[in-house]
Amino acid sequence: MSKDKIAVPVIRRLPRYYRFLGDLLENGVVRISSRELSAKMGLTASQIRQDLNCFGGFGQQGYGYPVQNLHEEIGRILGLNNHYNAILIGAGHLGTAVAVHMTLERKVFRLIGIFDRDRDKVGQRIGENCIDHIDTLEHFFCDHTVGTAILCVPKTAAPDLAERLYRLGVRSFWNFSHYDLAIHYPDIIVENVHLNDSLMILCYKIANCQHHIDSE
Amino acid sequence: MSKDKIAVPVIRRLPRYYRFLGDLLENGVVRISSRELSAKMGLTASQIRQDLNCFGGFGQQGYGYPVQNLHEEIGRILGLNNHYNAILIGAGHLGTAVAVHMTLERKVFRLIGIFDRDRDKVGQRIGENCIDHIDTLEHFFCDHTVGTAILCVPKTAAPDLAERLYRLGVRSFWNFSHYDLAIHYPDIIVENVHLNDSLMILCYKIANCQHHIDSE
Repeated sequence: MSKDKIAVPVIRRLPRYYRFLGDLLENGVVRISSRELSAKMGLTASQIRQDLNCFGGFGQQGYGYPVQNLHEEIGRILGLNNHYNAILIGAGHLGTAVAVHMTLERKVFRLIGIFDRDRDKVGQRIGENCIDHIDTLEHFFCDHTVGTAILCVPKTAAPDLAERLYRLGVRSFWNFSHYDLAIHYPDIIVENVHLNDSLMILCYKIANCQHHIDSE
Repeated sequence: MSKDKIAVPVIRRLPRYYRFLGDLLENGVVRISSRELSAKMGLTASQIRQDLNCFGGFGQQGYGYPVQNLHEEIGRILGLNNHYNAILIGAGHLGTAVAVHMTLERKVFRLIGIFDRDRDKVGQRIGENCIDHIDTLEHFFCDHTVGTAILCVPKTAAPDLAERLYRLGVRSFWNFSHYDLAIHYPDIIVENVHLNDSLMILCYKIANCQHHIDSE
């Protein structure tokens, strides 16, 4: 099956497979059966077989899946061999946490700039970057190619920033701002992180005693 | 249809409906058609009609949905009328961001304690709480009833903390730690926030030029 045809719920599960297979690799595991993988991941074995069938050619009845090949293939489907320059806007607690996280991970996205509107923060170092003032954003783009922007700003600050970044050519966003970018710019790529949505889902699970809604 | 039967993808979309309907309420909108709602939310009108049919009794052909009733009903399904005490472990940048967020939101979860292993942080104030040392965790539980723990600690610190919290009776977790709690404690409720998974999905979307995988 071509990768264009992979269903959305399967795509959403890919990072989880990638993480688990990475842990197995680190522990020297060479092959794993769908049954063992299911016990580790809290998915059913048949769900796992279905999911992994989407990528084709993996797993042989009775032999299990080759951990390294599968890990590499999922990484390839996720596009983890690519490299993009990213900037982060909003160096509050959340922005700083995200910047530190990206400095540690830096597999795909290289953070090359951090901006804030607070002049007191300008010059402070986070990982490999110093915070610049947001007024210097347009100037920064004269010298740098930036594909992705990470928005860690309040909802109220987001529309103006989104417009500036869009005009500067940014077309992909990791959006923590609670502002609905995708509605206003249909041609951009957005991945939203809504902490509040996650908290509401926790609330739903508690209120309804649902332990396993992630597995489905 | 009983709320127990609502499909998982619909549940995952509920917070989004709740947010959008809340925005509409604030703007004085009394009724909205599935077509208008679909334009705002980036879902198809038929998807929205299907989703909202799960809750029964809403929307009349040609009249649209009553915004306030629908907002209240979705809030009720999500369990947002409940109240739970929560504590947060790990007052780094991410933990601080989450604590501030919860202080602002505090609809369902009331943050009544923040713990860290760094003695230099003890006594520092975040919102309504002062940071306590993690060694005082068991003592804290003598005087407080805590249903939910928020783990903002590194993966390596999580197993020991999870065990302590589980023994203290905590059965629901908002988990930022990248440690797979649910596998080790099948009777707990966990909502995970995996920033790295989200970043991998962004990477997938860019690599595959997929703008709309959230809508499905």
